[in-house]
Amino acid sequence: MLGMLEGLRIVEVSSFVAAPLGGMTLAQLGADVIRVDPLGGAADTSRWPLAPSGTSLLWTGMNKGKRSVTVDFRSPEGREVVTRLAADAGIVLTNAVGRGWLGYEALSAVRPDLIHLQIEGRPDGSAAVDYTVNAEIGFPLVTGPVDHAGPVSHVLPAWDVACGLYAAVGLLAAERRRARRGEGAQIKLPLYDVALATAGNLGFLAEAQLGEERPRIGNYLYGGFGRDFAVGDGRVMVVALTTRHFTDLCEVTGVAETVAELGRMLRADFSVDGDRYRHREALAALLAPWFECRTLADVEKALAGTSVLWAPYKRFSELDLEGSPLMNEIDQPGVGRVRAPAIPLNTGERTAVPAPELGEHTDAVLASLGMDADELRARGVVA
Amino acid sequence: MLGMLEGLRIVEVSSFVAAPLGGMTLAQLGADVIRVDPLGGAADTSRWPLAPSGTSLLWTGMNKGKRSVTVDFRSPEGREVVTRLAADAGIVLTNAVGRGWLGYEALSAVRPDLIHLQIEGRPDGSAAVDYTVNAEIGFPLVTGPVDHAGPVSHVLPAWDVACGLYAAVGLLAAERRRARRGEGAQIKLPLYDVALATAGNLGFLAEAQLGEERPRIGNYLYGGFGRDFAVGDGRVMVVALTTRHFTDLCEVTGVAETVAELGRMLRADFSVDGDRYRHREALAALLAPWFECRTLADVEKALAGTSVLWAPYKRFSELDLEGSPLMNEIDQPGVGRVRAPAIPLNTGERTAVPAPELGEHTDAVLASLGMDADELRARGVVA
Repeated sequence: MLGMLEGLRIVEVSSFVAAPLGGMTLAQLGADVIRVDPLGGAADTSRWPLAPSGTSLLWTGMNKGKRSVTVDFRSPEGREVVTRLAADAGIVLTNAVGRGWLGYEALSAVRPDLIHLQIEGRPDGSAAVDYTVNAEIGFPLVTGPVDHAGPVSHVLPAWDVACGLYAAVGLLAAERRRARRGEGAQIKLPLYDVALATAGNLGFLAEAQLGEERPRIGNYLYGGFGRDFAVGDGRVMVVALTTRHFTDLCEVTGVAETVAELGRMLRADFSVDGDRYRHREALAALLAPWFECRTLADVEKALAGTSVLWAPYKRFSELDLEGSPLMNEIDQPGVGRVRAPAIPLNTGERTAVPAPELGEHTDAVLASLGMDADELRARGVVA
Repeated sequence: MLGMLEGLRIVEVSSFVAAPLGGMTLAQLGADVIRVDPLGGAADTSRWPLAPSGTSLLWTGMNKGKRSVTVDFRSPEGREVVTRLAADAGIVLTNAVGRGWLGYEALSAVRPDLIHLQIEGRPDGSAAVDYTVNAEIGFPLVTGPVDHAGPVSHVLPAWDVACGLYAAVGLLAAERRRARRGEGAQIKLPLYDVALATAGNLGFLAEAQLGEERPRIGNYLYGGFGRDFAVGDGRVMVVALTTRHFTDLCEVTGVAETVAELGRMLRADFSVDGDRYRHREALAALLAPWFECRTLADVEKALAGTSVLWAPYKRFSELDLEGSPLMNEIDQPGVGRVRAPAIPLNTGERTAVPAPELGEHTDAVLASLGMDADELRARGVVA
C-alpha cells in the first residue's frame, strides 16, 4: 500500500484523535503528511496513556508515518512559516479553532485552490469532544446492563475515529475534484454531525421519529439473536444474524428439538429474526447450559465448521499481536520496541512505521521550501 | 458537496453495515453507486429496526443515494450481468464471501485495471461481525460501571462504521493511483484488523505491551478529569481536557480554593492532567453538590462563556432534529416523511436523499449497458 497516495502532501495542525487520525490514515497510504505543532507540542503532547519515559502512547499511536515540524505559533514570523507550508502543500487539515491565520479565508488568499478541512465540535463552531458528543447523541442510555439506571459512556472514542476517517475521505474527494476541475474546497466537519449522521444512518433516528423507544437490552443483539454466555473458563459472545446461523447454533448445542417445541408453544416462527429477538430470553436460557459446562477450547472445537458467529471476550493484554499480520515490531522513539499496527487496508504491502519525534523534520521541511532553519532558530521562531 | 465525486462509478454487492456505509459515503459525495442485490434482496433486507410497513430502517439508512439493481445470483446469466456491471464500473466493493465469481481474480480477468475491495471478518478470511470482533478486542471488559463484573458490549457498531469509512478511503486512494499510473488494486479489509488497528492507534495495545492493565473506571475520562454528574432534572457529562478547562470548571463551580487546598494536602499538582486523573474521585466529590442543586438550564447558563466541555445525556427521541442543518426531510419509500442525515462533510451544499426501492434502477442500469431488462425478466434473470 506504500506509495498509493504518492505525491499528495498535507499540512496538519491538530491535536488529540480525530484530526491526527485523518492525517495518519493518508500518511499510511503514502501521502506526505506534515504535522505542524507549536513549540513544545500541542495539547495532546502528554495525553495518556504514557510510556514510562512520559512519552504519550496516544500521540505516538496517532502520528505514525508523519513528518513533524515545530514552529512558534505566537510570532508573526512563525505563522508565516506555517502559511508558506500550507500554500506549498495545498491541503490543510486542522481541528484548531480561534486561529484566523489558519482558517480557509486567510490561507486561500495565498493559495486560491486550497483544500481546507476544519474539524469542529458543533455545527455552530462551538467546542465539543467525543465524550460530550457521545452523551448527547443517545447511545449511553441504551448501552450496558439492563438493571443499570444511569448512562454508560463508551471507552472507545468512536466518534473521533469516525470523524478522522470522514476527514480522510473528504480530503481525497476534494483532491480528486481539484485534479479534474482545478477548484479548491472549504470543508467543515463537526464532530456532533458525525455522531448524528451515524445514528441516522444506522436507523436509530428514524426509529425514534416513528415513536419507538430503543430499550436497554444489555449484551443482547437488537432485532436478532445474539448474547454473551458464560463458559467454564471465560465468556463468549454468540451471534446468529441469519436463519442458517441460528439453525446451526441450535443443532450444535443439541437444542433444535426443544427450540422447535418452544416455537410451537409460543406460536413463534424462529426462522424469522424478529421472533428470535422477541423470545431471546427463553432461547438464551435453553442455550446457556451447553456453554456453561464447556471450556473455551470445547466451544471452539464444537463451533468450528458451523456458520455460528462467536468470539471469546478478551483483555487487551490477551490479544495475539505476534500472530497478527497487521502488527509489526517498530522502534518507537520514547517508547522502545513495540508492536504497532499498519493500516487495515491490505494490499499485501502494508508495514507499520513509527511516529516521529516532535520537531524531527523541522530543518528538512523548511529547507525544502528554501528557508534556513538555523537562522529562524536563532530568533526563536523554530526550536 | 453533491458532485464532488462526479464520474466515479462503483458496483457494490453488500449487506448489513460496513460495506453499505462505504458505498453510501461515496454516493453522498456524488459517486454513482450501484448496489446489486440478489432477487428478493440480501440478508439485510429486513434487518431491524423496522418501519410499520416492515421496511428496514437500517437498509434505508445505509443505502441513501444509491441506485438499486436486483439480479438472480444463482443463474450463470445473472452472474454475467453482475460481471458486466463490475467491468463497466471498474470498481467493486463487497463483503460477500464464498462467491468466486465476485472475487478479484474472476473480475480482473474481464477488467484488468479493476479496483476490488473485499471486506472480510478476519485476516484469514473467516467470518466475524462487529459484535463478535468487539468482544475479542478488549473494550467490553473496561467499559461500564466499576462494580459490574461482566463485559459491556457496545450498542453502536463502531467497528462496522470505521470499517465502512476505511473502505471509502481505500477506494478513493486506489482510484487516485489508477488515474495517475493506470494500475488497479486488490484490497482486503478485515473487520478484525480495523478494530485491532484502532486499539493500537489509540495506545491501548502499546499500554498493554508495556505491562499496564487498563482499569474499568465507569464514566470517568481516562488520564484526565471528566465524569458524569447528576443534576436536578437529568445528568450531564463534564470534561476538562486541559488545565484551562479545569481551572474554569473549578472557578465557575466555586471550588477553586477548596481544590487548591486539596492539592496542597495531597501534594498533587492539578495543573497536570495525570494528577487530575489520579485524584478524580476526590475532585468529583467536591464538584457533585454544585451540579446536584442545579437544573440543566442553570448548568447551561453558568457554563456558557467558559471553556468547560459538557453536554446533557439525551435519548434518541430527545435530539433536536429540526434544528440540525445536517438533517433534511425526505420521502423515504416504505417509511414515509422523515428527517434523514446528509453526509457530515459540509461544503455548504449537502442534502439528504432517500434510499432507492429494492431493484428500482434495474431497467435503467441494464439499458445503459445495452441489455434488455424485459427480455432478461422473461427468463427470470432479473425481477
